Amino acid sequence: MEYFLTQLGIGVFAISGVLSAARTRLDIVSITLVGLLTALGGGTLRDIILDLPVFWLSDLTYFWVAVGASCFAFVGIRFILKLPPRLISYLDAAGIALISVQVIEKTLASGYGPTVAVVMGIVTGIAGGLFRDMVTQRPTLLLSRELYATPILVGCVVYLLLMALMSQAQARLLAMAIIFAQRSAIIHWQISIPLRLTLEIKPKP
Amino acid sequence: MEYFLTQLGIGVFAISGVLSAARTRLDIVSITLVGLLTALGGGTLRDIILDLPVFWLSDLTYFWVAVGASCFAFVGIRFILKLPPRLISYLDAAGIALISVQVIEKTLASGYGPTVAVVMGIVTGIAGGLFRDMVTQRPTLLLSRELYATPILVGCVVYLLLMALMSQAQARLLAMAIIFAQRSAIIHWQISIPLRLTLEIKPKP
Amino acid sequence: MEYFLTQLGIGVFAISGVLSAARTRLDIVSITLVGLLTALGGGTLRDIILDLPVFWLSDLTYFWVAVGASCFAFVGIRFILKLPPRLISYLDAAGIALISVQVIEKTLASGYGPTVAVVMGIVTGIAGGLFRDMVTQRPTLLLSRELYATPILVGCVVYLLLMALMSQAQARLLAMAIIFAQRSAIIHWQISIPLRLTLEIKPKP
Repeated sequence: MEYFLTQLGIGVFAISGVLSAARTRLDIVSITLVGLLTALGGGTLRDIILDLPVFWLSDLTYFWVAVGASCFAFVGIRFILKLPPRLISYLDAAGIALISVQVIEKTLASGYGPTVAVVMGIVTGIAGGLFRDMVTQRPTLLLSRELYATPILVGCVVYLLLMALMSQAQARLLAMAIIFAQRSAIIHWQISIPLRLTLEIKPKP
Repeated sequence: MEYFLTQLGIGVFAISGVLSAARTRLDIVSITLVGLLTALGGGTLRDIILDLPVFWLSDLTYFWVAVGASCFAFVGIRFILKLPPRLISYLDAAGIALISVQVIEKTLASGYGPTVAVVMGIVTGIAGGLFRDMVTQRPTLLLSRELYATPILVGCVVYLLLMALMSQAQARLLAMAIIFAQRSAIIHWQISIPLRLTLEIKPKP
Repeated sequence: MEYFLTQLGIGVFAISGVLSAARTRLDIVSITLVGLLTALGGGTLRDIILDLPVFWLSDLTYFWVAVGASCFAFVGIRFILKLPPRLISYLDAAGIALISVQVIEKTLASGYGPTVAVVMGIVTGIAGGLFRDMVTQRPTLLLSRELYATPILVGCVVYLLLMALMSQAQARLLAMAIIFAQRSAIIHWQISIPLRLTLEIKPKP
């Protein structure tokens, strides 16, 4: 069941990656590569940094789901664009919530401490999108004031705290709910980081 | 003999990388770094993903050939620009054909299956050029409709199929010929992916 | 003592990374990520290529120093901008000098030869800044004629030569002084690579 949901999450990441990247004209091959990069890039970087076997090499289902979802995004774009506009965003939020708690567990199980686990949660969550935007030369996440890394950070820290207070099954459900709730609120009310928490250095004349 | 041709391929990748990147003004140091990145970047990423020793660390000939070819591209640019304009493209096509079948063999020999082998063929073939374009901020391969990844994909799949039908030596020669023929046709007739196989999502007003 | 100076170097890299990236408006989260990427990115890539454990995973002090310095750069920006304008550049030069000789030693101690050691010195010194510029879509080092990789290259080669002539302690001090002196001269006199050592290929009409 969880495995099935994870694959669903991978598929949603690929589709939302394609939707974001295709604001620039892309061909079917580039779309598939962009979908793969968005869906698998973050986890690949995480596994490389932790020196673990890259997750999709041993279970190619991830790979094929991302390929299939990317091709579907190309073929079924009219259908996807007819969906309620924020549905994909909410599905993406649900995917991020699920993947984040899994990354925490995987990192802890590999013998790393809680700080590394939180960092890896963020790396897994944002690196795929960063790679996509770098390769398609669109403004990256870091240049927008969208709250994407922050809810993952909060959720991952909360999960680690909750683990000490309740059973792991309860803690992970609550942490997932917290990440999903944050992202949903951000999507619904289009919340962004306030301007006074930003910095711009004007070069001297 | 094959080793010599492989080194020749590395040199050609470095030179074609420099020719592509130097449409923006670059200094000699940047040119060498760009040549290295183009020639060695794809194989480096492949080895990192597969958790194999990075190929040029144990045999620095690859490194020195790429350095030498990049410096030659700087010093001998007048000579290179006097060559028939597509010669470098055809040499690049021959290099890609040779490297692709080698990657298939290396990946299979490392215990991975045919799907991973094909993915690694594509990663090795395109990642170096992507890195180059990202670092020099030129439009990447994914933004053009040039057929570059597709012939590698076709050739790698064909190679795996042919292996079941004939001796490996025959299969690899045929696969290399198929990749080279595809790229040559694409270069000669300037074939690109038809517009109806592209997608562009206009943001809603 | 050296450990303390190294951490100071990491902090300076994070701050100078933030100062460079924040010419584009960035929020506090992006600033922290950019500071981390600048300060830890080069060493991370080096360890991944050499297949060594990533340095900040086993000693999180590096990580926290980079996080702290990035946040300080955000909060204390008025203070930092009141400092003599080139102070951060000189501190960066000192940091680069220290880190470069350490990388040479670490690479040699891991069983690699002098060429790989020099390459890793350059990778460690420039990759963090490249990642920062790619992610924030600012012109990268490779597009400017700033002499940044070259003094590292010279210093690393000199260090390896000096090792044969004197004690390692003397050689490293001298090599560090040479890197720092080069960078200081480049910063002070704003030396850049002369135009005739650059190349630009005009596309044919």
